[in-house]
Amino acid sequence: MIDLSLLPDGGIGWLEASGPVNHLVLSTRIRLARNLAANRFAGRMDSRERQTVLDQVLEGAGRTGALGQAVTLRVDTLEDWDRRLLLERHLISRELAGNGDRSRAANARALLMQQEASVMVNEEDHLRLQVLVSGVDFGAGWRRIEAVDTELGQQLAFAFHPEFGYLTSCPTNVGTGLRASVLIHLPGLVLTKEINKTLHGLAKIGLTYRGLYGEGSEVVGNFFQLSNQTTLGKSEPELLDHLGAIVQHVIAVEERARQVLLREAPTVIEDKCWRAFGLLRYARTLGFEETMNLVSGVRLGASLRLIPNIGMYALNRILIFSQPAHLNALAGRIMSDEEMSIRRAEFVRETLEAEVRRGQGT
Amino acid sequence: MIDLSLLPDGGIGWLEASGPVNHLVLSTRIRLARNLAANRFAGRMDSRERQTVLDQVLEGAGRTGALGQAVTLRVDTLEDWDRRLLLERHLISRELAGNGDRSRAANARALLMQQEASVMVNEEDHLRLQVLVSGVDFGAGWRRIEAVDTELGQQLAFAFHPEFGYLTSCPTNVGTGLRASVLIHLPGLVLTKEINKTLHGLAKIGLTYRGLYGEGSEVVGNFFQLSNQTTLGKSEPELLDHLGAIVQHVIAVEERARQVLLREAPTVIEDKCWRAFGLLRYARTLGFEETMNLVSGVRLGASLRLIPNIGMYALNRILIFSQPAHLNALAGRIMSDEEMSIRRAEFVRETLEAEVRRGQGT
Repeated sequence: MIDLSLLPDGGIGWLEASGPVNHLVLSTRIRLARNLAANRFAGRMDSRERQTVLDQVLEGAGRTGALGQAVTLRVDTLEDWDRRLLLERHLISRELAGNGDRSRAANARALLMQQEASVMVNEEDHLRLQVLVSGVDFGAGWRRIEAVDTELGQQLAFAFHPEFGYLTSCPTNVGTGLRASVLIHLPGLVLTKEINKTLHGLAKIGLTYRGLYGEGSEVVGNFFQLSNQTTLGKSEPELLDHLGAIVQHVIAVEERARQVLLREAPTVIEDKCWRAFGLLRYARTLGFEETMNLVSGVRLGASLRLIPNIGMYALNRILIFSQPAHLNALAGRIMSDEEMSIRRAEFVRETLEAEVRRGQGT
Repeated sequence: MIDLSLLPDGGIGWLEASGPVNHLVLSTRIRLARNLAANRFAGRMDSRERQTVLDQVLEGAGRTGALGQAVTLRVDTLEDWDRRLLLERHLISRELAGNGDRSRAANARALLMQQEASVMVNEEDHLRLQVLVSGVDFGAGWRRIEAVDTELGQQLAFAFHPEFGYLTSCPTNVGTGLRASVLIHLPGLVLTKEINKTLHGLAKIGLTYRGLYGEGSEVVGNFFQLSNQTTLGKSEPELLDHLGAIVQHVIAVEERARQVLLREAPTVIEDKCWRAFGLLRYARTLGFEETMNLVSGVRLGASLRLIPNIGMYALNRILIFSQPAHLNALAGRIMSDEEMSIRRAEFVRETLEAEVRRGQGT
């Protein structure tokens, strides 16, 4: 198995719950799609040309400060479970993690990572720059990724059209090539049944939503990824300002929904949160989806201060580490579903026990 | 409200979980039906005659050692909730607790109680002697009730027929007037789906079963009352030996069922028990039936030593004190259903917290 300790923070510094509004927003992600002007788009390349692209990117990145010390993982040569581990850690896309033959060696798929910045090579575009930061912080994210983009752009000739902007494999990314998203927890809107209205409203103003694991993934545990749909016709700061304002609005309606719940059904809410805590703390076998739903309840209780002493960091860790590839990595072997559910419950118990002990000690 | 502290052990010494096999059997109950020879049966008496019966019993009992110091409660003058409290404490029957007019004053219904022995007066029979002991112990129960019966019989002329034995209001009690029962917890047989076969077998050999609260009450939390159907044609020790042997058999099949569960589905069982514990320990609102079912899970876990440090006494207390009349008595007022569910969860939490603290201290 791959050694994730090679990655800075194991690649999950964004989990640390240090950023603004981290009781609602787990992380902010910004990515820029870039392509090399001299090469064909990814869909039309053969393996030789892919290798050429990777070589150029590695060489160029090596000459930058932002990525000069980057750890490089050849994703196409990794085992299925290792690619899945990177996917679960939100470091690579489903596309890059791939399935079956498409992801196999000679595809020259790679991940470069340094601090909270990373670059996926030979994904849908030649380069996908990505920055992940804790909480909701488009400013910090943008400053970081802009620096990476500028440095890389000095080394590599990106495909750029004076009228359209950056050219991308899929037309929906043309222009800025920017996609920004927040991973946000919205149990208040779900419990007050306002979520559909809210999501419908967001769609009208250019936002889309996904589940915890990006495109096509289902919403579990009331965790939503909200992101922009438009990449063209506005500058990057304008796009981010627009998205930032909308996210602040969503945060406000979520907070309001929570206050309504606390006022109108305090016992129901308290009971729901504490039962979730009781089950997570003591269950001996837990499925992944059930775990997400219970974590949602505990997260709500902790952020409303109904449940004391449970930190967001611990809950964020459970989200990541109770996934299949992470549990296998922890066990050092591929487990059966039954074993995995037992191991998951064990991990969750240990994590919450440590929180409870820590809380009693302070 | 009535002051139950007047009663020895509050009338719930049988809860203490000190008797044999108390991890399976909560209590053994023996009762003897007796009638005064000079009076008509209860169904035919008017209120004046009822009063006469009560006067005679009080006078006779006052001259005995077994009941000379008995606390006397006039059940017919108690408020509904107080009668229900006695019923919940298993001290009086549904019949004596009564409903509406039948239970009102001038019915001269009374409970005499001293140690673990009690007498209901003007129930279906003039006298119903009762002894409740912890665990399964027909010997101890019988010695105690026989002493009471003998002493009372020296003071009062009981209706007795040389051929049939003691005469009773309902023919099913004629003969010995003895009914003995155990309150037993059978989750193993329920989970292995062997319970119906077992109960069917018991019916064939003269046993009947009921729920936690006697005739007509539903089985909740896998608690069963097993009792004899026959009172005639055998001596009391023979009846009790027969019942005792059958109860030992039921205990053996329950233990076997638990071993099968532990062998074939250990994780399922452990998970079930711990989840029940987690919910009881943290829920903020609990219905009565849900509480019984969760207590059943924790009781199973504790008796299999899957859950450490949780004593049977604490769990027995929850059974009794989480009932409506007990919760009202605790609160000092009649609560709404919603308040009651909150208060129940609070009581359960406090009880389990105390157990956990006690366990950590040792």
